[in-house]
Amino acid sequence: MLATIDTMVQGVHFGSYTSWRELGWKAMAQNLSDIAAMGGCPEYALVSLTLPGDIEVSSITQLYHGMMEIANQFELVIAGGNISSAPLVVITIALMGKAQGKRILTRSAAKPGDLIAVTGYLGTAAAGLKMLASQLQFDSQTMALFRQAHQHPVPRVLEGQILSRHQVQAAIDISDGLAADLIHICEASHIGAQVEIDRLPIHPRVWAAFPNEALSLALSGGEDYELLFTANLETINKVKEEISCPITVIGNIVEASPGQLTLIDKEGKPFTRDKEGWEHFISAPQKDES
Amino acid sequence: MLATIDTMVQGVHFGSYTSWRELGWKAMAQNLSDIAAMGGCPEYALVSLTLPGDIEVSSITQLYHGMMEIANQFELVIAGGNISSAPLVVITIALMGKAQGKRILTRSAAKPGDLIAVTGYLGTAAAGLKMLASQLQFDSQTMALFRQAHQHPVPRVLEGQILSRHQVQAAIDISDGLAADLIHICEASHIGAQVEIDRLPIHPRVWAAFPNEALSLALSGGEDYELLFTANLETINKVKEEISCPITVIGNIVEASPGQLTLIDKEGKPFTRDKEGWEHFISAPQKDES
Repeated sequence: MLATIDTMVQGVHFGSYTSWRELGWKAMAQNLSDIAAMGGCPEYALVSLTLPGDIEVSSITQLYHGMMEIANQFELVIAGGNISSAPLVVITIALMGKAQGKRILTRSAAKPGDLIAVTGYLGTAAAGLKMLASQLQFDSQTMALFRQAHQHPVPRVLEGQILSRHQVQAAIDISDGLAADLIHICEASHIGAQVEIDRLPIHPRVWAAFPNEALSLALSGGEDYELLFTANLETINKVKEEISCPITVIGNIVEASPGQLTLIDKEGKPFTRDKEGWEHFISAPQKDES
Repeated sequence: MLATIDTMVQGVHFGSYTSWRELGWKAMAQNLSDIAAMGGCPEYALVSLTLPGDIEVSSITQLYHGMMEIANQFELVIAGGNISSAPLVVITIALMGKAQGKRILTRSAAKPGDLIAVTGYLGTAAAGLKMLASQLQFDSQTMALFRQAHQHPVPRVLEGQILSRHQVQAAIDISDGLAADLIHICEASHIGAQVEIDRLPIHPRVWAAFPNEALSLALSGGEDYELLFTANLETINKVKEEISCPITVIGNIVEASPGQLTLIDKEGKPFTRDKEGWEHFISAPQKDES
């Protein structure tokens, strides 16, 4: 049995640029992503809401439409919940699922020699947040991509199950940002990691919209809800055949101080172009400790 | 599998008169009481906290001590959780457990002819809240009883399991108050209930401390976390032999409009002494819709 709980707080995790329907989708997507990161199969959700008294019933109906939409997509049953009054909106979802047989993906199973790979693209969700929070304008395709990435993320549930079936052992979902989440794996596995900056699958539209910040959005923006995993090359090649989204190898697991992340350039030299920046976003406290 | 979720909000469900340790105990007790009301066996808890930045770590340690204390008592494992920042403290606990075989107590299984019974005493938790919120003084034994009842309730987990083993089918825990929770059973079972006011097991110290309000504290005060159940006399007598706390028969399930609760006096006449008062607390909206 797998179980996870996660909370979204008004003004901390979401703002007025998020519709109720998007909020419902996203709150559930975050939890589904935790089950995806274990390679599990989601089954039941419990939803606890705290709400100010002046919220319209139609807003809560929209919230539930968003939750139902993603729940139906992943054959998840919203089995119960709770409503309390409070001065602000807090959405807590507990999600239960099951592992596939005895296999489960964990943060603690990475080992030296493993390659580090990620699904999909990085930086789009953070680009979306930046665009929405600052009301920036881009071409319509870019705006749709960024909004979708931030407000309507699709958790990699199927992909997690495929990883698990192919004996991948170490994975995490990218909620805090690639750097922070890779460090979580390194700490839990008592190893270090080397990431080649030029290999990061940063979406071309992120480069185009934010040329100076694309790297930092990808490394520390968070909320991409892609899967980061470690495995040998043979396994990664097998996985690629079954997974329809891009899979990109970005670096190696190495013997090092537990939790040590080294960024390198194409020549294998430590990446130093913007050292202060890196230190900032590798060690910055996350707003959400989930 | 059984699962429940419940939330406590600072300023709504608890105030400054509650210590962090008591808060941890009580938050977990509420959830355990939901499992008790189904006759189940608690297994795992997930705890999600939202906390303002200025809370001392030692406060959270105390909160967890309170949760661990009751978890250990009921062989419950706190298996995980989440922490987010927020302007106020919100504690959400999801609790998973298992049913005993195929039996489960529900709100929807009461039937005409059943007797209505409750465990323990009523009104002590509400008396405790009144005492703490208004800083009232009584003799030390009374104050200890009231404080214990409100801040340190002991969920009837074992008792719920005994009810279930003896084929009791309908039960609920008294969180909103006897009247509101009995109405929940009546609505879910599509029946009505008659309760004889003089049979209510109101604690003598509640009568002594609040002679004019004892009845209303017992009927609508809430948070007693006793079990209310329906069964025939033979079953109730068997249950009494195994359960160490008082079990009191307070009325009957009757054919009536679904959800109709009639309060009667010793002679079986409708109870009218304080009609306005009754209507108030039978229909009053609860602060927590759990």
